[in-house]
Amino acid sequence: MLRHLSRKGLVMLLGTMIFLTSFGVALAADPGGAATLADDPTAPVNFAWVLVAGALVFFMQAGFAFLGAGLIRSKNTVNYLTKSFMDFAMASLSFWAFGFALMFGGSIAGGLLGSDGFFLINDAYDVNTILLWAFQMMFAGTAATIVAGAVAERMKITAYLAYAFLIVAIIYPIYGHWVWGGGWLSAMGTPAVDFAGSGVVHAIGGLAALAGAIMVGPRIGRFNADGTANEIPGHNMVYVVIGTFILFFGWFGFNAGSTLAATELRISVVFANTLLAGAAGAVTAMYYGFVRTGKADIGKSTNGALAGLVAITAPCAWVAPWAAVVIGIIGAFVMLGATNVLLKFKVDDVVGAFPVHGATGIWGVLSVGIFADGTYGNYTTDSPYITGLIYGETAQFISQLISVGAVIVWGFGGALIVFALIKYTIGLRASREEELEGLDISEHGISAYPAEVALPSA
Amino acid sequence: MLRHLSRKGLVMLLGTMIFLTSFGVALAADPGGAATLADDPTAPVNFAWVLVAGALVFFMQAGFAFLGAGLIRSKNTVNYLTKSFMDFAMASLSFWAFGFALMFGGSIAGGLLGSDGFFLINDAYDVNTILLWAFQMMFAGTAATIVAGAVAERMKITAYLAYAFLIVAIIYPIYGHWVWGGGWLSAMGTPAVDFAGSGVVHAIGGLAALAGAIMVGPRIGRFNADGTANEIPGHNMVYVVIGTFILFFGWFGFNAGSTLAATELRISVVFANTLLAGAAGAVTAMYYGFVRTGKADIGKSTNGALAGLVAITAPCAWVAPWAAVVIGIIGAFVMLGATNVLLKFKVDDVVGAFPVHGATGIWGVLSVGIFADGTYGNYTTDSPYITGLIYGETAQFISQLISVGAVIVWGFGGALIVFALIKYTIGLRASREEELEGLDISEHGISAYPAEVALPSA
Amino acid sequence: MLRHLSRKGLVMLLGTMIFLTSFGVALAADPGGAATLADDPTAPVNFAWVLVAGALVFFMQAGFAFLGAGLIRSKNTVNYLTKSFMDFAMASLSFWAFGFALMFGGSIAGGLLGSDGFFLINDAYDVNTILLWAFQMMFAGTAATIVAGAVAERMKITAYLAYAFLIVAIIYPIYGHWVWGGGWLSAMGTPAVDFAGSGVVHAIGGLAALAGAIMVGPRIGRFNADGTANEIPGHNMVYVVIGTFILFFGWFGFNAGSTLAATELRISVVFANTLLAGAAGAVTAMYYGFVRTGKADIGKSTNGALAGLVAITAPCAWVAPWAAVVIGIIGAFVMLGATNVLLKFKVDDVVGAFPVHGATGIWGVLSVGIFADGTYGNYTTDSPYITGLIYGETAQFISQLISVGAVIVWGFGGALIVFALIKYTIGLRASREEELEGLDISEHGISAYPAEVALPSA
Repeated sequence: MLRHLSRKGLVMLLGTMIFLTSFGVALAADPGGAATLADDPTAPVNFAWVLVAGALVFFMQAGFAFLGAGLIRSKNTVNYLTKSFMDFAMASLSFWAFGFALMFGGSIAGGLLGSDGFFLINDAYDVNTILLWAFQMMFAGTAATIVAGAVAERMKITAYLAYAFLIVAIIYPIYGHWVWGGGWLSAMGTPAVDFAGSGVVHAIGGLAALAGAIMVGPRIGRFNADGTANEIPGHNMVYVVIGTFILFFGWFGFNAGSTLAATELRISVVFANTLLAGAAGAVTAMYYGFVRTGKADIGKSTNGALAGLVAITAPCAWVAPWAAVVIGIIGAFVMLGATNVLLKFKVDDVVGAFPVHGATGIWGVLSVGIFADGTYGNYTTDSPYITGLIYGETAQFISQLISVGAVIVWGFGGALIVFALIKYTIGLRASREEELEGLDISEHGISAYPAEVALPSA
Repeated sequence: MLRHLSRKGLVMLLGTMIFLTSFGVALAADPGGAATLADDPTAPVNFAWVLVAGALVFFMQAGFAFLGAGLIRSKNTVNYLTKSFMDFAMASLSFWAFGFALMFGGSIAGGLLGSDGFFLINDAYDVNTILLWAFQMMFAGTAATIVAGAVAERMKITAYLAYAFLIVAIIYPIYGHWVWGGGWLSAMGTPAVDFAGSGVVHAIGGLAALAGAIMVGPRIGRFNADGTANEIPGHNMVYVVIGTFILFFGWFGFNAGSTLAATELRISVVFANTLLAGAAGAVTAMYYGFVRTGKADIGKSTNGALAGLVAITAPCAWVAPWAAVVIGIIGAFVMLGATNVLLKFKVDDVVGAFPVHGATGIWGVLSVGIFADGTYGNYTTDSPYITGLIYGETAQFISQLISVGAVIVWGFGGALIVFALIKYTIGLRASREEELEGLDISEHGISAYPAEVALPSA
Repeated sequence: MLRHLSRKGLVMLLGTMIFLTSFGVALAADPGGAATLADDPTAPVNFAWVLVAGALVFFMQAGFAFLGAGLIRSKNTVNYLTKSFMDFAMASLSFWAFGFALMFGGSIAGGLLGSDGFFLINDAYDVNTILLWAFQMMFAGTAATIVAGAVAERMKITAYLAYAFLIVAIIYPIYGHWVWGGGWLSAMGTPAVDFAGSGVVHAIGGLAALAGAIMVGPRIGRFNADGTANEIPGHNMVYVVIGTFILFFGWFGFNAGSTLAATELRISVVFANTLLAGAAGAVTAMYYGFVRTGKADIGKSTNGALAGLVAITAPCAWVAPWAAVVIGIIGAFVMLGATNVLLKFKVDDVVGAFPVHGATGIWGVLSVGIFADGTYGNYTTDSPYITGLIYGETAQFISQLISVGAVIVWGFGGALIVFALIKYTIGLRASREEELEGLDISEHGISAYPAEVALPSA
């Protein structure tokens, strides 16, 4: 049983189980929890911490749904909401059946993937394993739903749900295994690290969003023949702001919960860094827009906050508050720059999923190798401390670079293949007529704001 | 003082208090908490767990308000919101004054009701007792608000608030006493059990909703003279989806908080089961609709998720993850079936409160007797384990059947009497003119979306 | 290091640090947390409690944003949302750079202000200090955002953001220092107390709102030449109700988290009192309106709930549940009365920020001196118990009166000066043309509900 539940610990436990099982040694799981409690009196506070944090991460789904719904046109809102609601449901079943086992089920094939814990049966029916599943599931669901906004207003619901199942069953857990599941990136001399998932969750989701937006093509009317772009405003800025607040709220669980233990008191620094980076991103993006246009652009502000949050997600436990502010500021500029690059290449990413999650997620992974100040270890206070360039270490930065290369190749490449598979089987895109009418009526038979019917007054 | 705060433990404590008090023995309550802390070093993590979970359950009120507001017409939205907002306030005062004492204040009259703790004064001014009150209050408020959606668009606000007070003062706590307060259902040889309230909360609320919908009658225009029904679409599907996400989020507190202790590490399994059942319900209902109509019906998806959540609420601590998936799938079909039955009997339940909470709540209570796998006990690891039919025990299933009979008779019958009392005193239903105009103007003097007034520009 | 993290304890720690530092003694901070954990095994549950509560308080920002957006006209909604979103970001940076040090950085100048911890560097890079920063930051942000609703629909975004930075950098932390940071109000023979901030947060915010509303003047059309007022209804009552629910939800963290320790089991009483006072306020205000007008006024109900919550915020830990109900009832009447006073003086406070937070906040501070029942001490069970008038002590009431005088003079006076400074430099108010058109287009270049554009259908 685990004394300090940690990702690394859980992985080792599962690895041991597989080893023992393969030699026919029975190792009792603990489905009721009594044995774990007897062995570790700190388990209750750590379980409570992880589950509350997990609930907060779940709630981010509502944030993504609200934010995206506001940024699109009303005629496609039911379609977007259905994708946003159902992708989490699909992801839950997919991560239960396959994803979790591939990500955390020991390590085979030279650190490429795991192979134990499918359907949470047998030894996986254990309070520790299921605690990890529940928390990790929320992350898998987040990665999946990031894509919905990028491909909104023209991807078919059936294609999108197929994608959601596949990313959580295969693409997400494989890179996740490399970093968090004991795979090759974590087995390097200086392990590549990613505290709460700038790379594992956000870069994967953002890169898949980029692949999806490219494969499905821009919306009708987004780009003109001469290459210039038309702005297509969303339909409700209240949804955008409240959705962003919900995401910010959930992010405290996302980052601080990633210690997987309240006994790691570094959680207070993680929490404060999260707040500061998000705030710095919002202020940076707003004043950047203000200087350029004289307008206080709320859409830039909210995406700036999200960029700051994505950027701090990898380094949140390893940097000081001042560095969190700097990382958030740079994150906002990365987001703004990537937005311009997409326009230049005529990629239509409706909500800015790639700029916010993809490009900034990569910046977050790299920032660990720059700002980590050697005050905290690899999820525990008693493991080797993580140290970056400005504190005199280059090895960490190099490992982070390798991890960035891996996430780009696997995340972007893998998602391209998945979307291509769907495109040439069930098809990715709604018909021109459906798109012009809006997908709500054709795919769902209802509009987001149904006109009130005339009824017989009997 | 309590070592492990549990429902059973609290009940026994309160029972002892009453016993001692009736003999004139003074038993000191602990309003400051120092004595409890000295006696039980695990109290802080358990208190924190229960209060955070209680806050999450409170937040479900916002979910019900949002979801229902979206499913009705805009002309009755202020009316619905006022009911939804005020029923919780009424319930708080009602449960403080009466309900809690009837439910948990020891047991008199052969296990029919409790009788101590009114107004939380004297011995009830105690950190343990008030912890239980706070958490249980959230459940009482949930049961009350379930009804608002069923009787929306035609029940008078005064009638509804009278009902809200009475259900929490009398109907809810009596059945609650039988199951959770030491009453007769929990005193059977094999106690009927309900981990987090598929029966105590949801079936009671759903059956009261059915009684209310019958007593107030269908909305003008809902059914035609030939018995066919007219669909009356709601006015905002964004509210519906975000409301459902909020409910789902709160449900983690609802179910996992019901251990009343983080020292019960089974909370991780409870949490994961909750997620899986809700996800399975959503996927089932959506694909069922898709196969039948070719449309991805978001309303079916959200009600499917809620059905899965209601169904898993009773068995969440006693079943394995695979069983949670199965229970959620069946829950979705129960909800879909009950929806059709209501149509057949021309009952106008606007949001599907009876199908989602009533019928599926009953399924949840029964499912314990089928799927409980004998890995966990009655709120603790050291009480007799709960085991169902497919693991070879029939006694539990029979006790669950008895409990289902009791909840139908008391919940439906009691609510019928309460609504009849209101109907023949202050009246249940708004006038025909008010209903056609919408209740917002007549009962509240404001619409949900007030037209912007022309003002003197001085 | 701290055994029991408390405001007083932290203050003493910081004071000691400053003392030692000024003599050149190096005192090691604990950025990783290992030393704190070794010294105090209860730290994990207290850290987890404070951070979860802090996240809930953060989420109140979404409640303020939603509520205010609903209560104003659609043409100023983006402006309000931008203020509401950005003030928190500004406040985070401001409290990180300046506010926290002034409030908690020891005490100089006879208890007037603190002077250590700027930018959370050096000794302030410590898990305990940063825990306190994170929680307190949420409170500072709440105080700031209260003002947005009072000055909505006519104050310029640039003026508002300047204000937001200054209130958190200076006004908020100074009074906060006096009460919570070891300043003169807490150093009196009988210290003035304020458990969770009826005065420190709400009265400061509400008084600043009053100053802002006076300085910026009423909206065009709000008052007629004969002194009568025109009602200017908001544009979405759904936002109002859901926003209020979010605030109520967050308030559990606000109040119960203010123990700064789950080891203080009084948290259950705090939590229950919060619920009861909010419920009593809602019921009182609703039935008051019902008796006066025959309408169930949802706006009165929601502001009544908030008034009850603001009122109980100071006394929540020191009174019994019955007293919480009484305090909430009186709070609702204070709010209703203050609303009328504002009308009489032709002050245009759009959302009722002064009645809800200012007047009722003052009532909350006073109520401690009346209802405190001597069952709990100054944030701990082992400090002198707080006792009010009806339990025979007058000293506490007198201290509370002094604190009320101080908050009025400093809060209202300080805010007047800040707003005057802004008025005579960058200007407070949008032009008449901008106000008539709505601030959204002129200041932000987008409306809250952008019309859907006609696009080339290529």
